[in-house]
Amino acid sequence: MTTGPVSDRGFGPARHAELALLLEVAGTPKPGNVDRKRDLSDLHFEHFLTGAVGSASGLRLAEDGATVGAAFETAVEGMSRQGGGNTQFGCLLLLVPLVRAAAAGALSPDGVTDVVRSTTVDDAVSFYRAFEHVDVAVGDPPEDAPDLDVRRGAGAESALREQSLTLFDVMERSAERDANAREWAGGFERTFRAAESILEGDGPVTDRVARAFLDLLTEEPDTLVVTNHGEAVARDVMDRAAAVSDLDAAEELAESFVAEGINPGTTADIVCAATFVALERGVPL
Amino acid sequence: MTTGPVSDRGFGPARHAELALLLEVAGTPKPGNVDRKRDLSDLHFEHFLTGAVGSASGLRLAEDGATVGAAFETAVEGMSRQGGGNTQFGCLLLLVPLVRAAAAGALSPDGVTDVVRSTTVDDAVSFYRAFEHVDVAVGDPPEDAPDLDVRRGAGAESALREQSLTLFDVMERSAERDANAREWAGGFERTFRAAESILEGDGPVTDRVARAFLDLLTEEPDTLVVTNHGEAVARDVMDRAAAVSDLDAAEELAESFVAEGINPGTTADIVCAATFVALERGVPL
Repeated sequence: MTTGPVSDRGFGPARHAELALLLEVAGTPKPGNVDRKRDLSDLHFEHFLTGAVGSASGLRLAEDGATVGAAFETAVEGMSRQGGGNTQFGCLLLLVPLVRAAAAGALSPDGVTDVVRSTTVDDAVSFYRAFEHVDVAVGDPPEDAPDLDVRRGAGAESALREQSLTLFDVMERSAERDANAREWAGGFERTFRAAESILEGDGPVTDRVARAFLDLLTEEPDTLVVTNHGEAVARDVMDRAAAVSDLDAAEELAESFVAEGINPGTTADIVCAATFVALERGVPL
Repeated sequence: MTTGPVSDRGFGPARHAELALLLEVAGTPKPGNVDRKRDLSDLHFEHFLTGAVGSASGLRLAEDGATVGAAFETAVEGMSRQGGGNTQFGCLLLLVPLVRAAAAGALSPDGVTDVVRSTTVDDAVSFYRAFEHVDVAVGDPPEDAPDLDVRRGAGAESALREQSLTLFDVMERSAERDANAREWAGGFERTFRAAESILEGDGPVTDRVARAFLDLLTEEPDTLVVTNHGEAVARDVMDRAAAVSDLDAAEELAESFVAEGINPGTTADIVCAATFVALERGVPL
C-alpha cells in the first residue's frame, strides 16, 4: 500500500474540492459538528455526502472559469438537494474562489485575492439568490443597510445594482462580523495557514483535519456560534477548545457541544477550505 | 426539513452512482467491511471517499454512452488514486452497466441485460486491462483456461481476441464462482431485489443499506470470503449473519469479523449496486 502526492492522483481542482467536502465531514472529532462519529438531530452524515456530490456541478463550473457568482449559486442549488437543509453553504463560499484560483495556477493568497477582487455586481446578485435555495443561519444586517439583508434573496438585486456593490464589496462589509467574509477580505489567511498544518501533520488526513479544526476553534469566536448563542458563548467555546490536549480529549468536548446545541460551523467551513488547499498541495491519501 | 424523491433532486445516473459508493461505505454496521464506524488495517474510510470521487469521470463516461469497457477501465483507474488499494472494483463492475441502462431510460433487469449482452471483445480487453491499475483479490482461473487468468491483465488480449470472447462471455464463464459475474449473467437479480428492500425500508438510507447487506449475506457464500478463506468459512459467515436479529446485534458481528479478517466484500458490491437503483427510484435522502 502506498500513498501518493496529488500530482500522481490527477484530480482536478473541482474533484479536490468535492473530496475536501467529504474529508471535512469525515474528520473526527470536530466538536459540535457532524462528523464520522456524530449526527446532529436534523442534520446527518448522509446529508453531507449528498450535499458534496450535489455541489460537484457548480465546482466544475468554477474550474472551467465560470463567474464566482454563477458557480456558487449552482453549487448551492445542487448541495441543497437533500433533506438536511444547509450542509455546506459556507464551505462553498470559500471553495469556489479557491477552485478558480487553482484552475488558473494561482492558488495563493495573492491569487485568490485577485479572484475575489474581480467579482462583479452580478456575482453579488447570484450570491443573494443562493440564499433562496436553502435556509442559512445568519445574523441581522447592519442597521444602516436593511435593504442588503441576505434573507431578501433576489429581492436585494435593485439595492445591489443601485449601490454598484460587487460580491467582494459585500464580503468586505461583512468582514468584521463573519469569519468567512474575513477570509475573502484578507487573502484567506486562516485557510492557507491551516492548510500548512494539515500538510505538516501526522497520520490519516481525517485526523489532521480534526486537529486543524481544534486549532482554528481556539483562535476566534465561531461566527455561527455567535449568531446562534451570542459572543459570550462563542468565547467560552474557544476556551474549552484550548483546554483540549489531543483528539482523545476532544471526544468528550464533542459529546458536550452536541448535547448543548453548540455548532461551530464556520470553523468547519474554514477547515474544509484548508483541506482543499492541502489536497492541491499533495497531502497523501 | 423535508425529504424528496429523486425527481426533485435532479442528479443524473453518474452522480447517483458516485453517491451510491459513498452511502454504501457509510452504511453501518456492514460486518467485515469498512463502514462509518470501522476501518480495516490497510483500508480506511477515507480511501473509499477518495475512490468514489476518483471514479466519477468513468461513471460520467458511462452516462454519456461510452462503451462499458472504456467507462469501467477509466473508473477503476480513477478509483485507484489513493493509498488503500482496491476499494470499489466490484462495485464499479456492477455500477457501470447499470448507469448505462439508467441513462438509456431502461433501468430494469431486461434493460441492463441488453447492455451487458451488447458488450464486445474490446470491452473484455478493457476489463482485463483494469486489473493492471489495482490489486484485486481473485480466485484461480478454471484449469482449462490459464490464458484467461485476469491477473494477466493486458497480456490476455490475444487469447480474448482469438476466442472472440466478449465481456459478457467472460462474465458468464465466471458466473458459477463469482457473485458479481452472476449478477451480469442473471439480470442483476439480487441487485434489483435488494433495491426494493432499501426502497421499502425505514429510517435513514444508511440503515437501510446495512439491513440489505445483512439480508444478502445470509443468502449465498460471499465470493471474496470464499477466495480468501474457503467455502466452509463462507458458509459459516452466512449462518452467523442469519443469527443476527437487528442492526444492534450486528455490531458485535462486525467487531468479530474485523478481528477475524473476514471481509465479505462482494456482498458490499451488490448492496452498492442496489443503493444506486434505489437512488434512481427515489429513495428519500
